[in-house]
Amino acid sequence: MSSLRTALLQGPAGVPGSVTESLDALDGAARRAAAEGARLLATAEMYLTGYAIGDQVAALAEPADGPSAHRVAEIAARHGLAIAYGYPERDGDAVYNAVRLVGPDGAPLADYRKTHLFGDFERAAFTPGDTPVVQATLDGVRVGLLICYDVEFPETVRAHALAGTELLVVPTALMRPYEFVPHTLVPARAYESQLHVAYVNRSGAEGEFHFTGLSCLAGPDGVVRARAGTGEELLVADADLALIAAVRADTPYLADRRPELYRSLG
Amino acid sequence: MSSLRTALLQGPAGVPGSVTESLDALDGAARRAAAEGARLLATAEMYLTGYAIGDQVAALAEPADGPSAHRVAEIAARHGLAIAYGYPERDGDAVYNAVRLVGPDGAPLADYRKTHLFGDFERAAFTPGDTPVVQATLDGVRVGLLICYDVEFPETVRAHALAGTELLVVPTALMRPYEFVPHTLVPARAYESQLHVAYVNRSGAEGEFHFTGLSCLAGPDGVVRARAGTGEELLVADADLALIAAVRADTPYLADRRPELYRSLG
Repeated sequence: MSSLRTALLQGPAGVPGSVTESLDALDGAARRAAAEGARLLATAEMYLTGYAIGDQVAALAEPADGPSAHRVAEIAARHGLAIAYGYPERDGDAVYNAVRLVGPDGAPLADYRKTHLFGDFERAAFTPGDTPVVQATLDGVRVGLLICYDVEFPETVRAHALAGTELLVVPTALMRPYEFVPHTLVPARAYESQLHVAYVNRSGAEGEFHFTGLSCLAGPDGVVRARAGTGEELLVADADLALIAAVRADTPYLADRRPELYRSLG
Repeated sequence: MSSLRTALLQGPAGVPGSVTESLDALDGAARRAAAEGARLLATAEMYLTGYAIGDQVAALAEPADGPSAHRVAEIAARHGLAIAYGYPERDGDAVYNAVRLVGPDGAPLADYRKTHLFGDFERAAFTPGDTPVVQATLDGVRVGLLICYDVEFPETVRAHALAGTELLVVPTALMRPYEFVPHTLVPARAYESQLHVAYVNRSGAEGEFHFTGLSCLAGPDGVVRARAGTGEELLVADADLALIAAVRADTPYLADRRPELYRSLG
């Protein structure tokens, strides 16, 4: 069965506020990830612009097919690996907190808009997305996209599992003191919904925030396959589909659900 | 605000297969729990009869108001604390994997029948319950009931949180090698749905099973307030309602849910 080697680019990597420097850093990270055999490179939330950029969000937002999208497509095609990157997306008057997945040939594969906005800053800066499950197939692996706060709701990950997601890519901008999320909640999500979760965080201080790092790839058995520290880091790990089949054969959570009892949730 | 001191009776405590000895052990545990100021004593799953009793389940099953229920009511009233106990419940031809909550005056407060049966043994021995949320109020605290495998589904705990449960009591019979559940999944449930979870397990070997112990009271901040070892133990901890209000004010998971996006779950 298939396996997808995934690289998680933790950090600002570039310079918050400078899209050009973030793109340059992405190019370097893609080269290193490809050299390690990765087929997918995932960045943190709002990678292209930085997260704590306040009023600049609207100014730096670009259409899904804007100039930066073309630069990322070139980078993906040059290094021959897929890239999932976070950025503020402009669509008319609306700005979304978005992730685009680009294939290894540079073609766009999926666009996701964060559905669960966190706190006053995000509610002021962004319009929430309305499509809970966005997926694409990469090297035979069904890849899904969520962003940060989304994954803290078990409902979102469950919806992905029911829709067939095997590797859930979650760019995030998680700050102190919420280390419980990468340490415990993310492995729990992977275990209970029996899929891989690549949780890719920012690191370091930005404005009033101090991001925790601690990016990880958690497997469907709840085991963290790779865990970053608190600084900038390129983390590489394999998402193995055989493991999904094995844990679902042992404990069939999805088959043992009783949806008729869950009507109060939706 | 209120707080409920809760005692978790880990172990067979009595002798699997002997209801009489289990009731005697419950009496002793209730005396000790009351002496420590507990207002609620919770046992493991199938406490009265033992879990790995094979064909004896049907023979030892009793109606919810059967002879053992009267003995437990006497014990509760004598020691002046509520008791939540697991047992096989007979109702006509059906046998349920059940928990009854008895008040400190001996009056029955709530009856729950396990909705998610685990594995071939349970499916052969029991009829699944059809009521996902069963609650009662004790000392001003809204107490809910689940059993073992139920709590591994985030949907069940979420339904409780939405219905107002503040302390979720979960008798369980969790065996090796599923230690991920008490270590990670139970604290994650408490954190994501922002309530207290009292997870009360069996310990030691019974038939083909080796139960893990590791009972715990996990708070709505994900912090485990008390954790048992792997043997018989009476664990006492407080479920503090002020903590629920504090974490919900900091991160309003329940208010930030987007139920209109969760339709695929039910």
